Amino acid sequence: MNKLASQRSLWEEAAGRVMARADELALISETPVILTRVYLSPEHLQANQRVAQWMAEAGMQVWQDSVGNICGRYEGELEGAAAILLGSHLDTVRNAGRYDGMLGVLTAIEVVQALHNQGRRLAKAIEIVGFCDEEGTRFGITLLGSRGLTGSWPEGWLDQVDAGGVSVARAMVNVGLDPLKVHLAKRPLKDIAAYLELHIEQGPCLEQAGLALGVVEAINGARRLNCRFIGEAGHAGTVPMSHRRDALAAAAQWMMLIESSTRQQGGNLVATVGTIGCEPAAVNVIPGEVALTLDIRGPQDGPLDALLTALLEGAKDIAAARQLQFTAQEFYRIPATACSPELQGVLTQAVSEVQGQSLSLPSGAGHDAIAINECWPVGMLFVRCKGGISHHPAESVTKADVALAIDAFSRATTMLAQK
Amino acid sequence: MNKLASQRSLWEEAAGRVMARADELALISETPVILTRVYLSPEHLQANQRVAQWMAEAGMQVWQDSVGNICGRYEGELEGAAAILLGSHLDTVRNAGRYDGMLGVLTAIEVVQALHNQGRRLAKAIEIVGFCDEEGTRFGITLLGSRGLTGSWPEGWLDQVDAGGVSVARAMVNVGLDPLKVHLAKRPLKDIAAYLELHIEQGPCLEQAGLALGVVEAINGARRLNCRFIGEAGHAGTVPMSHRRDALAAAAQWMMLIESSTRQQGGNLVATVGTIGCEPAAVNVIPGEVALTLDIRGPQDGPLDALLTALLEGAKDIAAARQLQFTAQEFYRIPATACSPELQGVLTQAVSEVQGQSLSLPSGAGHDAIAINECWPVGMLFVRCKGGISHHPAESVTKADVALAIDAFSRATTMLAQK
Repeated sequence: MNKLASQRSLWEEAAGRVMARADELALISETPVILTRVYLSPEHLQANQRVAQWMAEAGMQVWQDSVGNICGRYEGELEGAAAILLGSHLDTVRNAGRYDGMLGVLTAIEVVQALHNQGRRLAKAIEIVGFCDEEGTRFGITLLGSRGLTGSWPEGWLDQVDAGGVSVARAMVNVGLDPLKVHLAKRPLKDIAAYLELHIEQGPCLEQAGLALGVVEAINGARRLNCRFIGEAGHAGTVPMSHRRDALAAAAQWMMLIESSTRQQGGNLVATVGTIGCEPAAVNVIPGEVALTLDIRGPQDGPLDALLTALLEGAKDIAAARQLQFTAQEFYRIPATACSPELQGVLTQAVSEVQGQSLSLPSGAGHDAIAINECWPVGMLFVRCKGGISHHPAESVTKADVALAIDAFSRATTMLAQK
Repeated sequence: MNKLASQRSLWEEAAGRVMARADELALISETPVILTRVYLSPEHLQANQRVAQWMAEAGMQVWQDSVGNICGRYEGELEGAAAILLGSHLDTVRNAGRYDGMLGVLTAIEVVQALHNQGRRLAKAIEIVGFCDEEGTRFGITLLGSRGLTGSWPEGWLDQVDAGGVSVARAMVNVGLDPLKVHLAKRPLKDIAAYLELHIEQGPCLEQAGLALGVVEAINGARRLNCRFIGEAGHAGTVPMSHRRDALAAAAQWMMLIESSTRQQGGNLVATVGTIGCEPAAVNVIPGEVALTLDIRGPQDGPLDALLTALLEGAKDIAAARQLQFTAQEFYRIPATACSPELQGVLTQAVSEVQGQSLSLPSGAGHDAIAINECWPVGMLFVRCKGGISHHPAESVTKADVALAIDAFSRATTMLAQK
């Protein structure tokens, strides 16, 4: 076996371990069969302990930080060197898949395991963090783990309660954490040089491009709005077409504008009307009011806001031309997170080396990298998932893709840590 | 006072009586304030008795027929002459207005009252019927009164039950009617020469044309369909615009086609999407399925069916272009009812005489005339109602319009009965 084939076989072995460990973690669940693992639950602690064992086997020093993240450090050539931080989350949504989050932690362990097997140290240390809460399933607030590292828990988070009325603070005490020590999870800026996160794509782009891996250019910013057209209800049989003030017809015209403007705009912008309802909602009554939501996202805030402004202007024009009213209220806004150009470059080189070409794509979903970006440069590596499906038990990746992903992840990490 | 002014003053007096009687009937209700008067209720019998008194005062022979219609006959010059039948219904929807139906009965009584005051007999008799059930509020089946006269109660109607499980047959017995004698309400064809119905428009056309009265060309045929676009749900952030199979976007495109095609078609056709819902209906999920209803109506079945076919073809084309599925299921169909050209001519002449011009318009709502048309020629006279509102306590007509309506109704009836 030549060196290349031998290395490939090692990555395949590593990928096999990752698949098996993902299966093992999927058993650590609040309910059997339906994978659910939430922050500060017994399952959270069990998963941390299992991951800690794997980190230790890879030659890492391991600790659980004060918010409940599981952390490991593979020392550099010199003790106390700044670290390349690899990570993702170990919590899940309800009835989750087994790769969203976990794949990033398990592949990172393989990156270190390979170095450890060779007894190889790099200029920088490598750290791995399994974040304790990215999804926000239990308390309705997200990125608790990564915002522990950045020291940016807002006031009030400790008082946030779950569906059973248990506060974050109380839940921390219940699992042996001290709510007064949240701030100790904060890492000094100098400790970390860069953050890389491997994650399933959660979208269809890589699958449709026929590629296993891609590099994230940015994590989409998002805006969500509740919108309403107000016209006049009327008898479906007696009001002529020319006399109508049909709120649903206005909404339909706007939905066409949303679709066509967003397509024309390009730039990886997406806009979605996900809910719609009309009143009085009778088969024989012209709708007098329509309520609908708009979800709009894009990798850059400027073009995103420009499109949103144009769409809202368009809605007002449509309403005015039909003698209707239009209102819109934004209820959610998250800015776009640009991935570091340097880290994108390194990841692109690594991906190109292992699959012959790379693909740059935005992340439509949110990730721990959003929070980490407040303090450190971030880069993300996406792995193809079947049908783009996530947040669902049908979430699926292939072992071959995972092997390729570990290879690229390892190359990028090594490149960065060697400097 | 000259003869014209004197006659006008008489019609105004008659209109005052009609308004007062409409107010009086509105008090005969299942619940105070909220006008509701359904078939075979105590209120049905009370209203019949009150209307019978007014008919008798107008010199009519009065009887209640075997399905519960209240009937009156003003004999012609020769006993047993064929009759011009005037009528409308005395039942209501829940929380009804006080003119829908009742106005036609009360104005008809004034037409006869005027002849009676003059001691005038015409070649033909004049009959009035206050139909017992047009709305179908209680049993969910409509036109029970008028289909008593035509002898076209379908098998099974007697077994139809109300919300409390009481059958039509049982309810008939409870008010002293014999379910075995329904057939006796049927009138021989030769008894009736023509049917005229005066009714509020229930739409905005007369108001917008600035006219009190109009002549109905036809009662719209109608079709109702449950429709569904089936695409693929997806993550609102991760699926690019070009990869979407968005069921709501397809539905929006179709709704635009419905509106534009129906407008272009002209011919008083109307089409309405009155209900819409999407699944999974989350702000951040691309809709995978959309269910919506289509209500389409027009005064002639040919153009109506042609438009419907074109719209369904259009939906299939839209679905195909977007790689979606489209299904449609018709759940309601009523053919158009053409009003008699001769009766339209007579009504048009009468309306032109009293308001200087006439307006021909379709009826968007159903009426007893639909059933009567199975046996006899029908004509309808529409009276302007405020804002086109009906089936609502805000239903409103002016006394001046009612006076004009009685005048025209009287002229038309006299023209027909003189022959």
